Amino acid sequence: MRFLTAGESHGPGLTTIIEGVPAHLPLTQEDINVELKRRQGGHGRGRRMKIEKDLVTITSGVRHGMTTGAPIALTVTNDDYVHWEQVMSAEPLKAEDEHRVQTKTITRPRPGHADLNGAIKYNHRDMRNILERSSARETTMRVAVGSVAKKLLKELGITVGVHVVNIGGVKASGTYQSIDELIERAEASAVRCIDEEASEQMKTAIDEAKKNGDSIGGVVQVVATGMPQGVGSHVHYDRKLDGKIAGAVMSINAFKGVEVGIGFEAANLPGSQVHDEIYWNEDEGYKRSTNRLGGFEGGMTTGMPIVINGVMKPIPTLYKPLKSVDIDSKETFEASIERSDSCAVPAAAVVCENVVAFELANSLLEMFSADRFDRLKEQIDAHIEEASRF
Amino acid sequence: MRFLTAGESHGPGLTTIIEGVPAHLPLTQEDINVELKRRQGGHGRGRRMKIEKDLVTITSGVRHGMTTGAPIALTVTNDDYVHWEQVMSAEPLKAEDEHRVQTKTITRPRPGHADLNGAIKYNHRDMRNILERSSARETTMRVAVGSVAKKLLKELGITVGVHVVNIGGVKASGTYQSIDELIERAEASAVRCIDEEASEQMKTAIDEAKKNGDSIGGVVQVVATGMPQGVGSHVHYDRKLDGKIAGAVMSINAFKGVEVGIGFEAANLPGSQVHDEIYWNEDEGYKRSTNRLGGFEGGMTTGMPIVINGVMKPIPTLYKPLKSVDIDSKETFEASIERSDSCAVPAAAVVCENVVAFELANSLLEMFSADRFDRLKEQIDAHIEEASRF
Amino acid sequence: MRFLTAGESHGPGLTTIIEGVPAHLPLTQEDINVELKRRQGGHGRGRRMKIEKDLVTITSGVRHGMTTGAPIALTVTNDDYVHWEQVMSAEPLKAEDEHRVQTKTITRPRPGHADLNGAIKYNHRDMRNILERSSARETTMRVAVGSVAKKLLKELGITVGVHVVNIGGVKASGTYQSIDELIERAEASAVRCIDEEASEQMKTAIDEAKKNGDSIGGVVQVVATGMPQGVGSHVHYDRKLDGKIAGAVMSINAFKGVEVGIGFEAANLPGSQVHDEIYWNEDEGYKRSTNRLGGFEGGMTTGMPIVINGVMKPIPTLYKPLKSVDIDSKETFEASIERSDSCAVPAAAVVCENVVAFELANSLLEMFSADRFDRLKEQIDAHIEEASRF
Amino acid sequence: MRFLTAGESHGPGLTTIIEGVPAHLPLTQEDINVELKRRQGGHGRGRRMKIEKDLVTITSGVRHGMTTGAPIALTVTNDDYVHWEQVMSAEPLKAEDEHRVQTKTITRPRPGHADLNGAIKYNHRDMRNILERSSARETTMRVAVGSVAKKLLKELGITVGVHVVNIGGVKASGTYQSIDELIERAEASAVRCIDEEASEQMKTAIDEAKKNGDSIGGVVQVVATGMPQGVGSHVHYDRKLDGKIAGAVMSINAFKGVEVGIGFEAANLPGSQVHDEIYWNEDEGYKRSTNRLGGFEGGMTTGMPIVINGVMKPIPTLYKPLKSVDIDSKETFEASIERSDSCAVPAAAVVCENVVAFELANSLLEMFSADRFDRLKEQIDAHIEEASRF
Repeated sequence: MRFLTAGESHGPGLTTIIEGVPAHLPLTQEDINVELKRRQGGHGRGRRMKIEKDLVTITSGVRHGMTTGAPIALTVTNDDYVHWEQVMSAEPLKAEDEHRVQTKTITRPRPGHADLNGAIKYNHRDMRNILERSSARETTMRVAVGSVAKKLLKELGITVGVHVVNIGGVKASGTYQSIDELIERAEASAVRCIDEEASEQMKTAIDEAKKNGDSIGGVVQVVATGMPQGVGSHVHYDRKLDGKIAGAVMSINAFKGVEVGIGFEAANLPGSQVHDEIYWNEDEGYKRSTNRLGGFEGGMTTGMPIVINGVMKPIPTLYKPLKSVDIDSKETFEASIERSDSCAVPAAAVVCENVVAFELANSLLEMFSADRFDRLKEQIDAHIEEASRF
Repeated sequence: MRFLTAGESHGPGLTTIIEGVPAHLPLTQEDINVELKRRQGGHGRGRRMKIEKDLVTITSGVRHGMTTGAPIALTVTNDDYVHWEQVMSAEPLKAEDEHRVQTKTITRPRPGHADLNGAIKYNHRDMRNILERSSARETTMRVAVGSVAKKLLKELGITVGVHVVNIGGVKASGTYQSIDELIERAEASAVRCIDEEASEQMKTAIDEAKKNGDSIGGVVQVVATGMPQGVGSHVHYDRKLDGKIAGAVMSINAFKGVEVGIGFEAANLPGSQVHDEIYWNEDEGYKRSTNRLGGFEGGMTTGMPIVINGVMKPIPTLYKPLKSVDIDSKETFEASIERSDSCAVPAAAVVCENVVAFELANSLLEMFSADRFDRLKEQIDAHIEEASRF
Repeated sequence: MRFLTAGESHGPGLTTIIEGVPAHLPLTQEDINVELKRRQGGHGRGRRMKIEKDLVTITSGVRHGMTTGAPIALTVTNDDYVHWEQVMSAEPLKAEDEHRVQTKTITRPRPGHADLNGAIKYNHRDMRNILERSSARETTMRVAVGSVAKKLLKELGITVGVHVVNIGGVKASGTYQSIDELIERAEASAVRCIDEEASEQMKTAIDEAKKNGDSIGGVVQVVATGMPQGVGSHVHYDRKLDGKIAGAVMSINAFKGVEVGIGFEAANLPGSQVHDEIYWNEDEGYKRSTNRLGGFEGGMTTGMPIVINGVMKPIPTLYKPLKSVDIDSKETFEASIERSDSCAVPAAAVVCENVVAFELANSLLEMFSADRFDRLKEQIDAHIEEASRF
Repeated sequence: MRFLTAGESHGPGLTTIIEGVPAHLPLTQEDINVELKRRQGGHGRGRRMKIEKDLVTITSGVRHGMTTGAPIALTVTNDDYVHWEQVMSAEPLKAEDEHRVQTKTITRPRPGHADLNGAIKYNHRDMRNILERSSARETTMRVAVGSVAKKLLKELGITVGVHVVNIGGVKASGTYQSIDELIERAEASAVRCIDEEASEQMKTAIDEAKKNGDSIGGVVQVVATGMPQGVGSHVHYDRKLDGKIAGAVMSINAFKGVEVGIGFEAANLPGSQVHDEIYWNEDEGYKRSTNRLGGFEGGMTTGMPIVINGVMKPIPTLYKPLKSVDIDSKETFEASIERSDSCAVPAAAVVCENVVAFELANSLLEMFSADRFDRLKEQIDAHIEEASRF
């Protein structure tokens, strides 16, 4: 599978094309809308999330609820484009409209955003040409793409979920018996956190940040069960699945770190407390007594749950101003933005989950016959069976 | 630039081909050997590192000390192949040799290694067919590739260095005035750490681990200065330079996490303490007062130093045994390995530095004309100058 | 630049996303529509071409008539989708609609089409799931993509044109003084042929074929002037520009061969009549006295006009029936199709031209700085100037 | 599978790394040497082919005659490097050697070679830096890579052969009953041609050309039987297998055209004589009565033999001089080269065959599980069986 996304934050809409989805995968718009909706929720979101309801349209590659093998095009319309038509129009401006549009010209780069770097790179003196694309609005399409991957994984018996383990320094604890339970409890929480006490503290922290005109970030943890053993490869660095996942997670807007399993904690522990012992029993084959390595050894899956942490920095759009410089006047100003979210971690968790789901699904398509879902499933089942007898 | 590596730990040698290196870059074998040597040092390394001296041979793409633009092939001979010729021979075994080779058959997977996953994936009952390739010996070639990138960066005025900031829980502090000072002090330390007191504690921790038959990991920090502003891109997720770096670092053997700038600490701080304010002055253009974001905003460089942390787990090869299962007999055994390093973090730091260097160099080649080094330099200089006047 | 296309022949529409177009290229919908219209003309086209008018909508990547550097999404609506909504719907069918849709099920593969191969590959017993995507309707988007490339080339002073040199065995002769003249004369011909006498014979051949219920193919010749010297590369097989062009041309629906310069005629001539002698003069630098090699030596441009021939086989949709087998009943039938074009060569010429244009533009973006059109142009101009003094 | 090649014509040797070869494929050096030897034969070759015997060394990825799944590195030593050590040395020249090396500096570009284009592209005033890499010596490694692919195809029951159908205008006719017969007869001919009478005329033409100080080219035809149906894909232009083959063939040194099936002849025939009717019988499933389309419809295999023609222009190295210009003095000279082949078509046929073999093998690896040869074979067998019952 490969995909491209396009679309600006205030343009007519967002588009993606996904090429390489196997034929015969059941898929409906609702499968995708469910994920888009999850991305729009969460305590701490600003007004925009509430007014817009993202709904996808499938315009190719799916017929009568089943993929055909052809490229899948998905579009999500931006409802408020009507208010931005002149500002964002693809066609040249009429002379009489130029003045009105100029008032929307942006010459003040926000710290923590792509604004200034992008402006310098692409030589745009109106930084709207940067921020319209660098906006986290784009993650809508990464979720849309991921939702197709999630559907594929689900049909293969692979479950992917996510929960929030830290917001603004409030760390969650709490265990779970199964991934289904994890998902149920996380989705029931306004901050996507399974620790109820921490949930409350997180909400308070978010409200507090908002009151201070500040914002906070957090850590999300993606968990996936059911992945067969030996997916990915040790033979070449760029075929290691954990490496691919790390690259994908770090490319999410505002993400600044990624861990597999215990991650950075591995620096503080002796080897005997980091590695997972190997067991075997006749029914299931090889198992690990622990899962500190998060489901990976040698760039390949171990058959244990995949555990990925990603850290999102606080949203840079701030009520509390940071200093910056107007690129035209070169005067310092305080980058104060009125409308904003104070915490987007619960939503970013959904993005992270879907981004990981894509990498997992893709790794299976690279390892097994990828043209037809029926064959894919047959082969993965056979592989799992063979692994259990290895 | 793109590259492939090949070679087994006990095979005749290691090979890499790098395609896309600009013509007219000065390059000698010594430029590469310097980096290979750095990778072989460090307190805590086992015997093998001491007996083998990796020396590279350039067999194509360089003429009279200058790249030509043609693919560069590099080889490093494994000195002890003479003792492994039958075991590792590419040609079919003679019947009379089979017995001798069978004694080298490996049926006991080591926890924390690719052994079992790879064996299941590729259906090898002799796990030597996995571990010969999954061995960290392969990082020799990643360093070799990185050393070519480092040479290119150096000629462009971009400096890359690395220091160790944590070994086995001993955390270094310590500041530095310049990257040159950082490099000098790190390279002078047996554990590649600029904090002298911590260095001593790290060495003690390593020796302690060794005595306990255990191993320890750590955190390395790569720093690069001189990168122009606006390298990478926000326009598509897979063009974000921080994402590429994360993928590359996580693909290093035993690495379990990667951070840009303050990384996971961003979860604990309010937005106003995470983002970097923007200043401007006539001589230099735009600057940041701090560098918490590690040189990246929006997937692009800010012009501030690049700061990347990577965590290496303790070496899984242990004197202190972990339980595992023989894949033939299915009996549990204790995975005790006699000869080993107890800590490879100082060496892994060099690998990480070179891996990051490759991504930095490559990002410049993608952004500017990449056929000729003279043009590349000219254009980067012009870009920097233009950015200072933006 | 890279792109994906999506869309079925009778689905809601066609989509493409082009990633990597430099910022600051002037681009309007009209630039694209002009090419789409050219593709829809030509003597010998069936009814469909006359009823549908393809018009593009740019939904991202372009603002106020200028590219921003962000991915460009283009859509073309299928006007007759209203008549196909149930048959082609992405959403699952309601029970009551199933019957009506089943009448559109296709179980009879047409010789010369993807129908049977695709059905076997993707396991579709309704071959509509194949032919909707394999239809030449898809070439609309390749033209749309190519039109963006053509705009870029035009702004760089590179002109691409095409003319038809053979239809159904009628071979054109005729010379031209300049590419502008070539284009003018070709576009003035109903069969896109600059030889007026041959044009008439071609039209007659097309009408004759139609009367016989048969179809005819032909040979198109793409010519491009203004390409700088040294574009492409000899250093690795997959960087040779003529190889890339050949791959792109052969991937056009119904194309069965491709030549550079004199192509297959090179087999019949001695070397002294195949190669192009090199001259030099102070003003222009190096020139060739002839251009038998079609603008390429060693996988790189020579600075002479690019000349590419592609052969299109007759359209397989035939009035005159060919035998085939129903995949359900296994009974032989005669594949007779009522509505069809009898010759699509004049239109395919436009597709071929645009496909070649993409490869040419892309090769320049790979060789020079590709983020910004202004820099690209500056560098190409400098390269041309330097080459003239080499 | 992916591969990189490296190496200069007079450097120490040639190298390739092939990544993605399935584990458990039987492979020995002899499998590769057989193909290398075929490339060195043929009536009309110059002296160099006779003095050098290319022998490959496998340095990784193969153990005891079986691939392991790890990257395969292959090297071929250039025997006469001893005479070129100073001229081609990677290390900087010593001052005292500079004079001797300067006599080997090349400032006279040969028409028909990469010399001048490459020199301008990479800014080399000594064109040895171009021609050492652009030399057809590189095709040695493409054959080496192809020989691995051929071994894989052979084990899957797919046979690839080649014969010469035109040399210098002498066209062969002649039919064959089976591909084995085709191969046997072609390999028995000094010009790799199955038409004995034409063979004699070709040899005469070659000798004649040599006597005249001229050279001649020709057309080679690759045939492959046993390819399953539905390999490649119609869903995206860059997944069409005929397109990939065309790109690969055109990238062979001196190749100027490529055809699938009847190729350019399709322009001269009505559709009813171009397409292949479909039959069906219970034992074999779907068959075609003819094979004018050369085994492809819709970018996918039809199950009929693959038939690919490639045209090689006469070798540009000429006894009979063409005019060119010295890049230093700017004076016109006559590009006369003393030692040369007069016809390399029989050898180029082997290159073309191996290049096509790589694309065929790779297309199977993309369609089916590619990690293990045993699984690959199992799945392809199952696919063929299923297709016969479709």
